[in-house]
Amino acid sequence: MNEKTLILMDIENSVYMEGEKLVIIDRRKLPREIAPLYCGGFKDVAKAIEDMAVQGAGDIAVTAGFGLYLAARELEKKGEGRNEKALEAAADRLRATRPTGFLLPLLMRNALKRVGKESGVASEVILKYLRQVIHSAREISEATGRHAERVLDSGDTILTHCFPGPALLFMLKYAKENGKNIKVVCTETRPYLQGSRLTAWSVSQLGLDATIITDNMAAHFMSLGEIDKVFTAADRIAMDGTVANKIGTLQLAICAGHFHVPFYVLGYGGHDRNTPKGTDIPIEERNPEEVLYFQGVPVSARDVKARYPAFDLTPPDLITGIVTQSGIHLST
Amino acid sequence: MNEKTLILMDIENSVYMEGEKLVIIDRRKLPREIAPLYCGGFKDVAKAIEDMAVQGAGDIAVTAGFGLYLAARELEKKGEGRNEKALEAAADRLRATRPTGFLLPLLMRNALKRVGKESGVASEVILKYLRQVIHSAREISEATGRHAERVLDSGDTILTHCFPGPALLFMLKYAKENGKNIKVVCTETRPYLQGSRLTAWSVSQLGLDATIITDNMAAHFMSLGEIDKVFTAADRIAMDGTVANKIGTLQLAICAGHFHVPFYVLGYGGHDRNTPKGTDIPIEERNPEEVLYFQGVPVSARDVKARYPAFDLTPPDLITGIVTQSGIHLST
Repeated sequence: MNEKTLILMDIENSVYMEGEKLVIIDRRKLPREIAPLYCGGFKDVAKAIEDMAVQGAGDIAVTAGFGLYLAARELEKKGEGRNEKALEAAADRLRATRPTGFLLPLLMRNALKRVGKESGVASEVILKYLRQVIHSAREISEATGRHAERVLDSGDTILTHCFPGPALLFMLKYAKENGKNIKVVCTETRPYLQGSRLTAWSVSQLGLDATIITDNMAAHFMSLGEIDKVFTAADRIAMDGTVANKIGTLQLAICAGHFHVPFYVLGYGGHDRNTPKGTDIPIEERNPEEVLYFQGVPVSARDVKARYPAFDLTPPDLITGIVTQSGIHLST
Repeated sequence: MNEKTLILMDIENSVYMEGEKLVIIDRRKLPREIAPLYCGGFKDVAKAIEDMAVQGAGDIAVTAGFGLYLAARELEKKGEGRNEKALEAAADRLRATRPTGFLLPLLMRNALKRVGKESGVASEVILKYLRQVIHSAREISEATGRHAERVLDSGDTILTHCFPGPALLFMLKYAKENGKNIKVVCTETRPYLQGSRLTAWSVSQLGLDATIITDNMAAHFMSLGEIDKVFTAADRIAMDGTVANKIGTLQLAICAGHFHVPFYVLGYGGHDRNTPKGTDIPIEERNPEEVLYFQGVPVSARDVKARYPAFDLTPPDLITGIVTQSGIHLST
């Protein structure tokens, strides 16, 4: 396995500067096509985030950070390098793209704070901060993966939902290195199919057995005893232990509870101190067209509506453990 | 509302003889296209059933019945009208198309029994029997819909899965006639999207509010209190009360139980006396390609596998009531 080819193991493989442009390897087209999307300004970046060219709370935050960097660069070119109001406005635009994850507003806030505190050129301050964030994100993913690996037993078949980020891949890599034989079943995760396209692909690149199922099959395989553990990510964890994650996480947790299958959340940096309760988390409701059309083809009649909540809330009593960089926090 | 335009309310609108050919309005193409599929012989009919041109336990059985009729016609044209072995072989081929539903083998058995007992031309005996079955199916659907309507309260939003057949449409029609205001949320039902394509379309044709959600959203809407009742069909009901139905039914029932949402099964003719227990029901495992491709486009990488169990088993303790032609059988 060549980690460089494992695009989704490190954000720098899919979100990086090329000259004055931000390149995003468009996740909507993976794995069929490695298609770079070039963003010349922060508005392009905001649109790319809104349109799902990138996904995952951490990666969305870093991408938005590069958007802020581009905004600072634009201002500096116009000789307005210290126009903090304009930079705040760009941050607002970037923050508004996806409301559910907590890392995006946190990164914006910290970046602006640094710009206010440090004396250098704003864009350079932001870029330096982003390098730290990316470095730290990799360490957090590795540590989370290392802790999560401890709950795996050789012979396990695990179920994943959406693409739970690099920690899942580190977990599986370490398990393989430790001689554990793990199989992975991936829910396809409609409507964007991140499970089919990103998770199953990345897992198979790790040399592991990857099987796609549609989102309605999970309980069936649990009922047959074919799933040993479930792993999802978290876009935000409230202080009360509620996990906001990709729509569908809640029903997997309910079914896992029903069949006594341990349900683990890869929680990376842990809880969000600014979110006391699950009900404080805004659930993004996306354009219903994304459910009514599949690759441009309408799925139903004209009079039919749709709903597309992109996330749901899983209460702590349905979660066996939240795995973070600091260890496994078992539900009490 | 013109019931004739409501194609899926009566099987004769979508499965009928035209000269010497059976016409099947291809359900995979509905509602975008009303595409007739012409079957000249029983092998064409078997292939059409296998390939999902028709769906629903009752409609599959009747379609296979027309296949048997075509087989009898072929034999009669060759002067082998009483070649019962050949007719049995055709029935075997038709029976093998979809193993889970119980009406298909029942209809084949009864049709062959009639041919054996009655003196007329085999094809005519079969056709006469089919006419009775279709007539009785309509009565069963109407009666089931009428009983089910009694559990609906005005203002209810119900959740459906797959296309639960004409009884659902009769239930909604009667509710409307009784002045009840009912909204319908339809799971899209991957991989064939029967919920988006057939149910949402038919419900909107009835003049009711129809909303599509992806299969991973059901628990979320239940958690918000937005679902008052769930209705699915049954492909087979074992004597122990286990319901085999479209994959995804089990997890809807588990989630409904978790949120105390009543879960009803439209059971039409009722239990299958030849199936003592749920574990006696064969679960059809279809070609994984149907999950790995969406409208001809591969969704993942080459090394990735998939699974496609087309049905699952829901135990009786998760079911509030089974509604049949004879009434509502509440779980004890």
